[in-house]
Amino acid sequence: MKRDVDSLLLERGLSAALVLRGETPNPTFRFLAGPAAAHITAAILVWRPGKRPHLVHAAMERDSAAATGFELSEYGAHGYRKILEEEGTRERANARLLAKVLGELNVKGPILVHGYGEVGRNYHVLNRLREWAPQIEIAEDEDLGLFDRARLSKGPEEVDAVRTVAGACGQAYARIRQVLGGGRLEGKKLKDSEGWVTIGRLRREVKKVFFDADLEEPHGNIIAMGRDAGIPHNVGNDADVIEEGLPIVIDLYPVQAGGGYFFDVTRTLCVGRASAELKELHALVREAVDRTVDSLTTETPARMYQEKVCDLFEQRGHKTIRQDERIQEGYIHGLGHGIGLEVHERPHLGGPSQNRDRIAPGSLFTVEPGLYYPSRQLGVRIEDVVFARPDGSFQNMTDIPYELEVAPATA
Amino acid sequence: MKRDVDSLLLERGLSAALVLRGETPNPTFRFLAGPAAAHITAAILVWRPGKRPHLVHAAMERDSAAATGFELSEYGAHGYRKILEEEGTRERANARLLAKVLGELNVKGPILVHGYGEVGRNYHVLNRLREWAPQIEIAEDEDLGLFDRARLSKGPEEVDAVRTVAGACGQAYARIRQVLGGGRLEGKKLKDSEGWVTIGRLRREVKKVFFDADLEEPHGNIIAMGRDAGIPHNVGNDADVIEEGLPIVIDLYPVQAGGGYFFDVTRTLCVGRASAELKELHALVREAVDRTVDSLTTETPARMYQEKVCDLFEQRGHKTIRQDERIQEGYIHGLGHGIGLEVHERPHLGGPSQNRDRIAPGSLFTVEPGLYYPSRQLGVRIEDVVFARPDGSFQNMTDIPYELEVAPATA
Repeated sequence: MKRDVDSLLLERGLSAALVLRGETPNPTFRFLAGPAAAHITAAILVWRPGKRPHLVHAAMERDSAAATGFELSEYGAHGYRKILEEEGTRERANARLLAKVLGELNVKGPILVHGYGEVGRNYHVLNRLREWAPQIEIAEDEDLGLFDRARLSKGPEEVDAVRTVAGACGQAYARIRQVLGGGRLEGKKLKDSEGWVTIGRLRREVKKVFFDADLEEPHGNIIAMGRDAGIPHNVGNDADVIEEGLPIVIDLYPVQAGGGYFFDVTRTLCVGRASAELKELHALVREAVDRTVDSLTTETPARMYQEKVCDLFEQRGHKTIRQDERIQEGYIHGLGHGIGLEVHERPHLGGPSQNRDRIAPGSLFTVEPGLYYPSRQLGVRIEDVVFARPDGSFQNMTDIPYELEVAPATA
Repeated sequence: MKRDVDSLLLERGLSAALVLRGETPNPTFRFLAGPAAAHITAAILVWRPGKRPHLVHAAMERDSAAATGFELSEYGAHGYRKILEEEGTRERANARLLAKVLGELNVKGPILVHGYGEVGRNYHVLNRLREWAPQIEIAEDEDLGLFDRARLSKGPEEVDAVRTVAGACGQAYARIRQVLGGGRLEGKKLKDSEGWVTIGRLRREVKKVFFDADLEEPHGNIIAMGRDAGIPHNVGNDADVIEEGLPIVIDLYPVQAGGGYFFDVTRTLCVGRASAELKELHALVREAVDRTVDSLTTETPARMYQEKVCDLFEQRGHKTIRQDERIQEGYIHGLGHGIGLEVHERPHLGGPSQNRDRIAPGSLFTVEPGLYYPSRQLGVRIEDVVFARPDGSFQNMTDIPYELEVAPATA
C-alpha cells in the first residue's frame, strides 16, 4: 500500500524514488498520485521518505496536478524551454532538468528511477543524468521491485474496485451463456434469430456489457475455439461460427475506464455435448484450480503452487513447461499473477526457482491452469481471482459458473 | 513509411534496430509488424537493412508471430528459462538473451534500441548488454528519431484508416450539437427530457457514438466548460450542468479498437448567445487556423507556423508562451503535432528553435491554436487535422462545422 513506500525506501537504503510520467501511462504514478494521474501526461515526481512528494508538471495540467495534493512546481518555473534551447536535444534537456530538480530538492545517494516510456532514449537520458548529478546513483531494483512490493497488498477501496469489475465480468459470461443457449444447431453450427452465431458476435455482446459498466478492454480479450483455443494467446477468429462440441476459451480482462483496476477471468465452454476427452481435460484443469485454491497460504513461496500443478498434470500424463520449455502442447504457461492497476502484477505463481514472491495478506491474484492440444482442436483454461484477506484466509472473488456444456435450444 | 526503414538505417550508419515489445504497447512495433502486433505481448524484433526481420516470441503467441511474416524463433528455443535460472534476475537474463540473439544474427557496430517499458529496469538491462555484447554500440537517436521519420509520411491505407476515425468524430460532434440544441434553458441552465444536460451526459453521448464505430478513447477526452475550458488539459467536470453563454471546449482523440489509428479534433461551442469577448476570441482563433492552413508548404520548418500564430496573437494583445514560458493565460501551448498510431507524433508545429521538423508529403498533423483566460471563464481552442498530399497540396481532413453558438430549443 502507498503508506509502505517510505519504509521500503528506507529499508533498501534509497534516498528517493524518481517516478516519471510521460505519455505512456505509468501505473505506479497512478498508484501514488491517485485518479487525477490519468489527466497528467508529463510529470516528474520525486518521492523522499518522510517528506511531501514533489511534482513537476505543465501549466496546462495545473488542475490535475493540484488534485494530487503534492508539492508542486511547473516546468516553466524551472526554465524548461530555455534549457531545451540551450541543450538542443530533448535527451540532454531532460537530463539537465532532472539533475536540476534533484539538486534543488537536495537528493543525494542511491535513488530508484521508475517510469514508462521509450527505453532507448531514456537510456541516454539516465546516462547523462548520472554524469550531471554525480551526487546520486541509479540503484538497481530487486526482482520484486519496490513498487511491486508496495502494490502487493491491496487496500479495501482497491478490493472494492476490483469487485465491481468482477461483477461486470459475471454479467458478460451470463450474456454469453444466454446467447449460446438461445441458438439452435443447424448441422454442427449454431444459429439464432440474428443469423450464425460467431466468435465476433460473442465479442460484441461482451463489449456491450462492458460499455454499460464503464469498463474498457485495452488489451482486448480472448474468445477462441477449437484449434485456436489450444494456443493460449490466440485471441480467436471473429468469422468462426460456433460449432457443436468444440471448446471455446473465453478470457476477459477489462479495466475501469480512465485507468483504474482490472479483473481477469477465464471459462471454457462448449455448445452441446463435449467429447469424453474434452470433459476429462476440463475436469482435470478444474481439479488443479480447486487443489490450488484449497491449499493457499501466505507462507508458501508462490511458485510452489505451479510446481504442484505440474506434479498433478504430469501424473496424469501431460507434458509441462517445467520438463521442457520448448513444448508446444500440454501445460505451457505459469499458474497465475497478481492483478490491480495492471493486468499482470506480482506475485507470480510460477517462474524460475529464484522467484521468491509470496502471496501477501491483501494480495489479489489469478489461479489459471490450462491444458492445450491444438493438434486435436482442444484447449481448456479456467481462471479465478483470489483475494488473500488481511486475516490470512482466502476468498475466491470469481462468482461465475464453471460448467463446460451449454445446451442449445431445441426446435 | 515502412519501406524507408532500411535506407534510414543505412543513412545513419546503423547496422540494426532492436525493437522491443513488452506489455506496454509499442506503436513502432505495430508499425513494423502490422495488426497482428496487437496480440504479441513479449517479443524481440531485430531489423537489419536488406535482411528478413527476425522475431523472438513466446510459444503461446506463435499464431500472431506467424502472421507478421518475419523470420521466427521462440524464447524456449533460445533457452530463456534456463538463462533466467542461471542469471537469477530478469535484467541479467534479458540482457544475456539480447546479447545471444544479436550474436547469433551476427549484428555488430552501432544499433538503435527502441522499446516501450519501464525505463529504470531497462537502463540496467542496456548497460549490461553493452558489457556482454561489446561488438555492438547503443547509438543515440536524433531528435527526429529514425522511426519518427519513417512514420512521418503515411501510406494510402493509413490515411484511409484516419479518415474513418474522422467520420466518427463528425458524428460525435453532430450528436453533441443535437443534444445541446434539443435542450431548453431554465434560467441559465440547460435541461431536456432526460433532465439537466451535464458535461457527463455529453461524454456518454460521445462514448456511444464511438462504441458503435468500434473506436476507443485510451486517453479519454476533454469536454470542459467556462473556467475549466481555460485550462487546456482540464478534462472537464461531469457534474457541471451546461450553462448559457459559457464556452465548452470539446477535444476528441479516439483510436481504432485494438491499437490502430487516431484522429484528434477540437471545437468550442456555446449554448445561446456568446459574449462579444468570447466571439472575438473565437474569431481570432479561427483566423489563426485559417491563416496557418492557407500558408502550409512542405518547405517551411514546421515551427515557423507557431511563430506566425504567436505574431498574430501578440499583435492582437495576447500574451504567448514564446514571450514567457511561465504564463498562465493567453496562448500557452504549441500549434500542432502529427497523428497516426500515436495521438502525438511528428512533425511538431512548435517547440524550441532546434526543432527542424518539416511537414513531409504524406504527413497527417493537427493545427490547434487556442486562447485561454480561466480567470474570466473563457477558453477557446479549434483543432483540425490536415493531410499533406504526396503532390504537395494540402487537404483539411476535418469536415466538422466551426460554428460557436448552438441555439437551444424554444418553448
